[in-house]
Amino acid sequence: MDFVRFPSVSAQPRHANDVQRCAAWLGNHLKKVGLEKVKVVPTQRHSIVYGEWRHAPGMPTAVVYGHYDVQPPDPLSEWVSPPFEPTVRENNLFGRGACDDKGQLLTHLKAIEAYIRTPGPLPINLICLFEGEEEIGSPNLTGFIQRNRRALRAHFAVMSDTRMLGPNRPSLTYSIRGQLALEIEVRGPHHDLHSGNFGGAVHNPLQALCELIAQLHDKDGCVAIPGFYRRVRPSSKSERDYMQRNGPPDGQILRDAEAETGWGEGAYSLYERTTVRPSLTINGITGGYQGIGGKGIIPSRALAKLSFRLVPDQDPREIEILFRRHIARITPPTVKSLVRTNQSAKPAVVDRRHPALFAAAVAYRKAFGVKPVFLRSGGSIPVVSIFQRVLAIPTILMGFALPDDRIHAPNEKFHLPNFYKGIETSIWFLWEISRRAKGAERALGAPTAESMQINGR
Amino acid sequence: MDFVRFPSVSAQPRHANDVQRCAAWLGNHLKKVGLEKVKVVPTQRHSIVYGEWRHAPGMPTAVVYGHYDVQPPDPLSEWVSPPFEPTVRENNLFGRGACDDKGQLLTHLKAIEAYIRTPGPLPINLICLFEGEEEIGSPNLTGFIQRNRRALRAHFAVMSDTRMLGPNRPSLTYSIRGQLALEIEVRGPHHDLHSGNFGGAVHNPLQALCELIAQLHDKDGCVAIPGFYRRVRPSSKSERDYMQRNGPPDGQILRDAEAETGWGEGAYSLYERTTVRPSLTINGITGGYQGIGGKGIIPSRALAKLSFRLVPDQDPREIEILFRRHIARITPPTVKSLVRTNQSAKPAVVDRRHPALFAAAVAYRKAFGVKPVFLRSGGSIPVVSIFQRVLAIPTILMGFALPDDRIHAPNEKFHLPNFYKGIETSIWFLWEISRRAKGAERALGAPTAESMQINGR
Repeated sequence: MDFVRFPSVSAQPRHANDVQRCAAWLGNHLKKVGLEKVKVVPTQRHSIVYGEWRHAPGMPTAVVYGHYDVQPPDPLSEWVSPPFEPTVRENNLFGRGACDDKGQLLTHLKAIEAYIRTPGPLPINLICLFEGEEEIGSPNLTGFIQRNRRALRAHFAVMSDTRMLGPNRPSLTYSIRGQLALEIEVRGPHHDLHSGNFGGAVHNPLQALCELIAQLHDKDGCVAIPGFYRRVRPSSKSERDYMQRNGPPDGQILRDAEAETGWGEGAYSLYERTTVRPSLTINGITGGYQGIGGKGIIPSRALAKLSFRLVPDQDPREIEILFRRHIARITPPTVKSLVRTNQSAKPAVVDRRHPALFAAAVAYRKAFGVKPVFLRSGGSIPVVSIFQRVLAIPTILMGFALPDDRIHAPNEKFHLPNFYKGIETSIWFLWEISRRAKGAERALGAPTAESMQINGR
Repeated sequence: MDFVRFPSVSAQPRHANDVQRCAAWLGNHLKKVGLEKVKVVPTQRHSIVYGEWRHAPGMPTAVVYGHYDVQPPDPLSEWVSPPFEPTVRENNLFGRGACDDKGQLLTHLKAIEAYIRTPGPLPINLICLFEGEEEIGSPNLTGFIQRNRRALRAHFAVMSDTRMLGPNRPSLTYSIRGQLALEIEVRGPHHDLHSGNFGGAVHNPLQALCELIAQLHDKDGCVAIPGFYRRVRPSSKSERDYMQRNGPPDGQILRDAEAETGWGEGAYSLYERTTVRPSLTINGITGGYQGIGGKGIIPSRALAKLSFRLVPDQDPREIEILFRRHIARITPPTVKSLVRTNQSAKPAVVDRRHPALFAAAVAYRKAFGVKPVFLRSGGSIPVVSIFQRVLAIPTILMGFALPDDRIHAPNEKFHLPNFYKGIETSIWFLWEISRRAKGAERALGAPTAESMQINGR
């Protein structure tokens, strides 16, 4: 609850100090848990919290990743209890970040603490790497990892920032979608105009924005940007069969969304639409008068925030070019449009035969009493592709979030039984890794335990 | 400047007390000027300020109308000086309401004061009727006028809330457009959803709203609601010729708008598009995340504010039905849409041969040294159709606003030379009315000067 109480909203400059206080709290907590060389490393924006434990010679090294920053809490009026006053109701902890990702990050910290505080050392070597910029696209993480490539040498990474299928239906995520977040601004007259005096004679930027957005999907729910689907990797028959057997059925996804009807590409299940198919979402629009009652104006500008979710082998940079070209082509001469790029991340897939993924599956079975299924996720975790590209390691995605945890939405919560089972899963996971590594370690190439310098900014 | 300093924003409940303080100030000012039976009459929302002077037996009676409420001032960041700290720069008084309508209302009060404070009485009988709800569609004015029909018996009304063509180009407005202001809300999932987990599987209410709005105009800029143009009265050849000769050319309207290109119905001039043709304007849209940076959500709802400007013989109630029917028809089954009506007013035209209009034309010529032209206006003034319907009197629209006065927009101003010439015009107008009325009065049917009870609420 102390951790959730920090309004560590990375996107909003007015919370910069809260993010920093949260990082300091987390650093202190790492020290209390017993991690070593703990540092709160400044970056150009929000700090990275680092800690390590390297007393298992000959054993693999894992990077434990998590993020302590959170999404903006608005709309505030829809929260039952305030977003930064964590409250327990019916076995759930409510608060912004309770699930995404503070609660899930803590499952691993508490597992580490359990090993260190009881007789017997940690079974493998660990590097904790907790960032404060995940919700804004991890802009400074790549540089940090590149600069500290040697210190971060490891065999794999593990993180918990994904979902299970239900309270007793554990799952391991083996693919995530990429992301490309943009803004379109449409500009018309130099200042707001009286809609009586000018209505009918000047193109309204808000109307023009709507007309542009309405041209981004065709009537079948497909993205209507030329070339958008060109690099989308088709799913094999066996993959589609596996997904159909093990993934959530349409009805479950609609119940989770509390939505009444599905929408989108008819040739695919809702699970497929949100995982192996790319999507485009309008995240926000603002323009003109928004207060109570009315105001007779033609606004001078209008703004939309939107984001793509991308799948292999789409490249965010290529999609950005296609999007900008499409917007330029469909913008009428009566207004001006500007496109700004906020963040991007590549899609990523983990090899389902990786031994650490097997270890995770065993750990889930021991903690939950149920075999997990392998799932694709629709979300985006930029760090997974960064780990792959810079450190050449896969990331094990051990999610403990439930579909109704309302991450990114009002009344976000973390199901407390999942918190405790998550800790147990992490404990078993580290144990299983060490058990499997014995003897195989030398072949994998052990990272050195030498003293390493961690460099910020 | 005292008058403009009140933030009498009628649309915003938090300014209710400021509106009331402004009404009290205006009532006191009427007493100081020398008007009689001054009352600040409460209504269900904002008070009506009343005063009279009835010492010209045998002379006509005029209702002097104006409004002391103002539009919301936002976006605040675009004001050079704060909207409610009136400031004089280069012969202009800047401030919200400086022009619309506090400054223009005062031209008549100062004319009345000039007569009363100098030897010789006012030439005609006057009733001052100043409301505080014009910017929210005058919801309580009709009831007030109906209840006080006898006390308000008059030969015509006069008001200044319209525009001239330029600093030395006076004009008399003889038609205004009606108005119908609505809101559309589109509802989707019960709460905001994570756009990674659900993007592609659920119809986004913001996207659906854009798709609805994009279907309200066709590609030629015409309103695409079936039946919308059915009752639009076509302009005669002579009217179109007069408008072309005397109205502002396209280039002038674009300069006034500070817009680079026109838009809309190609078969009509921009002056025609904004006066004899109806229009539909999106005044504001809000939905989803609007802060800095991005937020990966599918918002649960989206809202648009929009308003029609209507021309004879369109009826706001009929247009409302057509609009609701159209929205119901084009709303896809994947979302829900709700339509709310905020306000409405009928279009109005004043007979160009009315003697009071001639008197006004002479008054302009004497004050400005130039003959005024007769203009149509694109704005909406609900009281004009109320006066017509309930009191059976025409309204003389003596506007002193300039096209660049930015009414309803940031940095609204009133050109001070127009304030002084406006006072002179009003003085000459009352004089011309009395000169023309001598002898003709009995024929018009003089209102009684008996003591009358003014009833509020």
